Amino acid sequence: LTRASSLGERGLLRRYLPSLSSRLSRRVETGPGDDAAVVRGRRGRWALTTDMLVEGVHFDRSWTGGEDLGHKSLAVNLSDLAAMGSVEPAWALVSLGITQDASVDFVDKFHRGLSRLAQAHGVDIVGGDTVRADRLTVSIAVGGWAAPGGRLVLRGGARPGDALLATGTLGDAAAGLEILMGSKSRRRGAVGFSSRDRGFLVRRLLRPEPRLAWGRRLAQAGATALMDSSDGLWRSVTLMCEASGTGAVVELEKLPLSRALRAWAAASGGDAAGLALAGGEDYELVLAAPPGRARALEAAGAARVVGRVTERKEGVRALENGRPRPAPRMFEHFKADKKRGKRGAS
Amino acid sequence: LTRASSLGERGLLRRYLPSLSSRLSRRVETGPGDDAAVVRGRRGRWALTTDMLVEGVHFDRSWTGGEDLGHKSLAVNLSDLAAMGSVEPAWALVSLGITQDASVDFVDKFHRGLSRLAQAHGVDIVGGDTVRADRLTVSIAVGGWAAPGGRLVLRGGARPGDALLATGTLGDAAAGLEILMGSKSRRRGAVGFSSRDRGFLVRRLLRPEPRLAWGRRLAQAGATALMDSSDGLWRSVTLMCEASGTGAVVELEKLPLSRALRAWAAASGGDAAGLALAGGEDYELVLAAPPGRARALEAAGAARVVGRVTERKEGVRALENGRPRPAPRMFEHFKADKKRGKRGAS
Repeated sequence: LTRASSLGERGLLRRYLPSLSSRLSRRVETGPGDDAAVVRGRRGRWALTTDMLVEGVHFDRSWTGGEDLGHKSLAVNLSDLAAMGSVEPAWALVSLGITQDASVDFVDKFHRGLSRLAQAHGVDIVGGDTVRADRLTVSIAVGGWAAPGGRLVLRGGARPGDALLATGTLGDAAAGLEILMGSKSRRRGAVGFSSRDRGFLVRRLLRPEPRLAWGRRLAQAGATALMDSSDGLWRSVTLMCEASGTGAVVELEKLPLSRALRAWAAASGGDAAGLALAGGEDYELVLAAPPGRARALEAAGAARVVGRVTERKEGVRALENGRPRPAPRMFEHFKADKKRGKRGAS
Repeated sequence: LTRASSLGERGLLRRYLPSLSSRLSRRVETGPGDDAAVVRGRRGRWALTTDMLVEGVHFDRSWTGGEDLGHKSLAVNLSDLAAMGSVEPAWALVSLGITQDASVDFVDKFHRGLSRLAQAHGVDIVGGDTVRADRLTVSIAVGGWAAPGGRLVLRGGARPGDALLATGTLGDAAAGLEILMGSKSRRRGAVGFSSRDRGFLVRRLLRPEPRLAWGRRLAQAGATALMDSSDGLWRSVTLMCEASGTGAVVELEKLPLSRALRAWAAASGGDAAGLALAGGEDYELVLAAPPGRARALEAAGAARVVGRVTERKEGVRALENGRPRPAPRMFEHFKADKKRGKRGAS
């Protein structure tokens, strides 16, 4: 008896989805394996994606409020749409597995967080399902519309010579998790690390902002490959290279770090660049683009160059001031230790 | 602190979905509250629905194989599309919360059951998500296309004077569950109850066939209200009356019973009509239609008349040979006892 969990998240997905994917009908433009699937509509296309969040694996109620959960569970799905490019989110189906001990107050707050984010992005919550569960579980499916002429960008289009870029700042959410876990937060009173910095990092974890407008902009600006950084930059780059048949170099000193992350690292001795490289849950966008376009995007403040795409044979490498840095452990919820909050974010 | 579970499934759904539904955009034709939502596409409409199945609540691995689960978790969603009328299922997103003890073999079988039913109905499995969970959890979202001119039939269109009808036979799945639970199966060797009957009833529980072709036919034949019987005929009629602002009478002696269910009842002393009235999980269609159309449908073998729609003030009533029968307890997964297999199906 082989345990299914030994296959890991991607192995399992391949196992129960794949043989179907070889027989998908012609209306399916992109099947499983990208941030979202693409199905042809009349004069346009639908981008479709789903994500499931389980208590004790993806969040913990001791530090995730109802409003946080409502926001985040929709945000991670919208991030998948953003990662497709020119997509306008349209609708969501929201299922909730609810525990006996969950309060109405928690559900009300969940609704508020969900509702606010949905309204901010013009998403209609059109339906859902509620079931009893031992652990609080949220499963959301979203659909976004790509109008004719809109450009959808998959993971597999990066070419050697392209620049690698990322939006926003990286590593914040992983630092936020470390702070919540308490491991390095004792010194939060230390010089240079204010409660405002702390709040910023925690908020980056609990309330990620899906980069939908950026996704559309980066697609129109000529990104050759695009995905989100849900499981960390390193994992995104690895998957992008796998899909594109390329290698890549990530330069640690180029990673965009927030002021708060630098302050946290200085105060706690934490490894800011390491978190920016491998920590998950920032929900920024990672992309490849030809050098000229990359420079223009950087000049416009839309994204920062963090490395370059290479030939496949060169592999996927991280350099720190020109020297190789060992490949970090990849962020994966599925194989994470069962202990509360212990996740591959360090 | 009020427990959210005290609100019940529908109360909870109302609580976390509702205030949004009042602000849905114009592209949403039908929001939460029907079998599926309806969103306008270009020249046509999408019907969207989602269902979550949790081990210990909706199924038990001791009597539900991987193939059964793959089949049923898609079937219950397709049944919701069937309940909308003229819909062609198109795509599905399939998320799996997997336990540490689940085997690869189970996942392979899950895939097989899912795959076969998807292919039978032309459904593309376009994506999904896999997460770690304490209880096996399946969450599926499906989209179906209603071409221009196709008729979608909601729950709220029944009118006093309409006939009430149901497809197929009722109560089989509930008897199948009783058999699996073992409570009344000791006598399965009794006269008139064969292993073939037993197999039929159990299969009705584990492998429901979504009535998609029937849904399209009933919509085109002029059904005024349509829904599925996932939670039992009684519950469906009650919800239909609530949505339509009507009452109804269900006549027990008219309920369509399978030969196997009659044999089981004779051998075990079970209440066949009671199960047909209140037992869940048959996934047949329940509809209202003007009397002339109802007679035509009955003559064509498409559905059987089981009662009539009345004025609201008459309430929702069950009659047995003209005499009132007490309203049965409604089937609801959510409030079901936590004990294995104890569900409101009796």
